[in-house]
Amino acid sequence: MATITALNKLVIVGVGLIGGSFALALRKAGLVKHITGVGRSQANMQRAIELGVIDEIATDIASALNGADLVFLAMPVGQTASTLEKIAPHLHANTLVTDAGSTKQDVIAAARHHLSMQNRHHFVPGHPIAGAEHSGVQAAQADLYAHKHVILTPLPETSMAAVERVQQLWQACHAQVSLMPPDEHDRVLAATSHLPHILAFTLMNHLNHSTDDPESLLRFAGSGFRDFTRIASSSPEMWRDICLANREALLTQIEAYQTELNSLRELLKKNDADALEQAFSQARDIREGWLKKKTKD
Amino acid sequence: MATITALNKLVIVGVGLIGGSFALALRKAGLVKHITGVGRSQANMQRAIELGVIDEIATDIASALNGADLVFLAMPVGQTASTLEKIAPHLHANTLVTDAGSTKQDVIAAARHHLSMQNRHHFVPGHPIAGAEHSGVQAAQADLYAHKHVILTPLPETSMAAVERVQQLWQACHAQVSLMPPDEHDRVLAATSHLPHILAFTLMNHLNHSTDDPESLLRFAGSGFRDFTRIASSSPEMWRDICLANREALLTQIEAYQTELNSLRELLKKNDADALEQAFSQARDIREGWLKKKTKD
Repeated sequence: MATITALNKLVIVGVGLIGGSFALALRKAGLVKHITGVGRSQANMQRAIELGVIDEIATDIASALNGADLVFLAMPVGQTASTLEKIAPHLHANTLVTDAGSTKQDVIAAARHHLSMQNRHHFVPGHPIAGAEHSGVQAAQADLYAHKHVILTPLPETSMAAVERVQQLWQACHAQVSLMPPDEHDRVLAATSHLPHILAFTLMNHLNHSTDDPESLLRFAGSGFRDFTRIASSSPEMWRDICLANREALLTQIEAYQTELNSLRELLKKNDADALEQAFSQARDIREGWLKKKTKD
Repeated sequence: MATITALNKLVIVGVGLIGGSFALALRKAGLVKHITGVGRSQANMQRAIELGVIDEIATDIASALNGADLVFLAMPVGQTASTLEKIAPHLHANTLVTDAGSTKQDVIAAARHHLSMQNRHHFVPGHPIAGAEHSGVQAAQADLYAHKHVILTPLPETSMAAVERVQQLWQACHAQVSLMPPDEHDRVLAATSHLPHILAFTLMNHLNHSTDDPESLLRFAGSGFRDFTRIASSSPEMWRDICLANREALLTQIEAYQTELNSLRELLKKNDADALEQAFSQARDIREGWLKKKTKD
């Protein structure tokens, strides 16, 4: 790999798990000289300074963006449009912008609306697939992205050089970078991430509504339950935004899942032992095949 | 705690993860002198010998049961009736019998059908909540039950002494023992274990059916997906049996879950951001409350 030039100034908007870990990883790789943080909560920004994640808390957007090589948007995806609107007037012609939103078509629509063509040449929409149910800058870690996938969904007007630069920086965080059309990204993630979150949140609410005493009901829940529901501890605000941003694809997924669940319920109603075993067996085979492939990646 | 007398002879029917781990835990506690294994697969039984899990492979049921203090039934729960039928003619009057089935009403019905009143005095239905997606004797470990719940659901005719003896042995495996009526057990487990398994199996089948190329779809699935679907790698045969044995309670759970999922889908359809965030927030609170309580247990 060619030598990568260090960033003179990185601006991180939303210094939580995702933004903070990107900062720490680039610092560890020696690829950033100065990091400015932009955020809503002064306490959180103070914590980011104390943890050495950022060097400076932005006082205003204009001076934060002054001289920035790269702006990394890592606030909840629902704030993308308003954030782009706020930064657009102060964005220099050659400053790269990338983001970490879990949905991409809405981010691109917002960029089309708020960024000039010149700025869009330098805009590289991205999605690091490295969430965790813990959030906040205190959960940030330099190796969060190691061996994780990062998907970039460039616009037709994004320059090759911009894509390559963002790709190099992610690779320096030891992530595995792929390019994908934004609509495909949103469909794939609706299936493998957004739908499971909906199912896990729904299970917790179902259990809560199914009894007067959820505490007793849950007393004997074991490690299978703990792992199944881990994603139900994710940030409600973040997931509200993701679901709304990817509403159509997610609704399609939920409906198809409901059809599948109905079929399985019918097999159970009919006491169809062979078909049940076959359905479970197929489910297990698909998962085991995936795990094996994943380990090799 | 009073000193516990060691078992002279323990018979384990079904020497897999559950039976094997019970054997290893009691050995480690110095509470068993001789262990005889009964099983379908000669290769598996041979492996159990090599691993030091059992001392002897049963050649026939009559001699296996001869002089046994305790019989532990740990084969898939669907084989309970046929197993009880097979052992009943050879069961001594004072041999304790307990099991590890994930459902209890069907096990009790089978015991009522196949065991004499004398043998039922010594029958203690049980359920250690310590599954894992790995199965087989090679996965057995002496500390599988440490800090795990074991639920006992005695029959009205089960003697107090039998319950106490089985309870002591589980406690010697460092498990936390609770008593519960069998119908309550089956309702609770339908909600917190059987339903999540159904949902996880269904997700894998849905993904498989939603595309011609499940491998590409799954390529970017992350750690949230891995944990959510962990239980979809469970034994198809075992889960077929559990679902059929607890069919009524499970169908009730599936239907109520579907209602809850419909409500959430409607909120998404209506773009109701506040209600979505509240639903996710409530789900997270219930889970976090459970986790906190569990850690204290």
